[in-house]
Amino acid sequence: MLTVKIISVGNIKEVFLRDAISEYQKRLTRYCKLEVIEVKEGTQKSECEQIRSKLKGTVILCDTRGKLITSEELSEKIAITSQRGSTISFIIGGSHGVGNFLDDVVYEKISLGKITLPHQLFRVILHEQIYRAFTILKGESYHK
Amino acid sequence: MLTVKIISVGNIKEVFLRDAISEYQKRLTRYCKLEVIEVKEGTQKSECEQIRSKLKGTVILCDTRGKLITSEELSEKIAITSQRGSTISFIIGGSHGVGNFLDDVVYEKISLGKITLPHQLFRVILHEQIYRAFTILKGESYHK
Repeated sequence: MLTVKIISVGNIKEVFLRDAISEYQKRLTRYCKLEVIEVKEGTQKSECEQIRSKLKGTVILCDTRGKLITSEELSEKIAITSQRGSTISFIIGGSHGVGNFLDDVVYEKISLGKITLPHQLFRVILHEQIYRAFTILKGESYHK
Repeated sequence: MLTVKIISVGNIKEVFLRDAISEYQKRLTRYCKLEVIEVKEGTQKSECEQIRSKLKGTVILCDTRGKLITSEELSEKIAITSQRGSTISFIIGGSHGVGNFLDDVVYEKISLGKITLPHQLFRVILHEQIYRAFTILKGESYHK
């Protein structure tokens, strides 16, 4: 079973966002081993050092300047990663972003859109997209 | 004060999504008169007819095939609309989409990303983006 790590900065303060994430985490247990890691807010450098220490396997950075992908393309990336190794790590930067600090370890930068979102809401979306990706790979009816 | 209408299909079943939307609706009362309209799920044609009867002012359709915009561009669109008239209507299609049924009344099609999202989660994002747009226009610190 693939291990999916989601590494992000700071904790979720809003209850409704925490509930949304819990829901998708519960659903994801059917498809992967999910590890959610929150590093402490700090300077961009300190956040990146903490993130770096948590990375494993294929590393994907969510970055609005990355390659704009569709949900189908995300599911293909997850399928390919499963063949390359047993772990995929997604990084969601904090409000400072990660600059170029992690360029040497990032395999790919992806973007889910050009809009700026609160990174806490972005976490909900990433969870939902990973869940959707697995349902696409399994040919399930969630994704139409 | 600008009236912002958000017209979408079906009601929100998940409590955490309803809570998220309520939060942004509360915040938006400072900036605009917000009208949230839910039309009944049905065929694509019946959904579109219901939507059509609710439209007013400048009509913007959220459509993944529309123009990919940034949060700043959305705020500019809202600013321009304020000069053109007093109402802006955003349409979020249901799971069938709206096809070409509303092309004669839609002023612009915008896309917030290429990913497929549950339209209920998309509603949260649109609320957040409209809130963000007003904070950009007012030069407030929410958007960095």
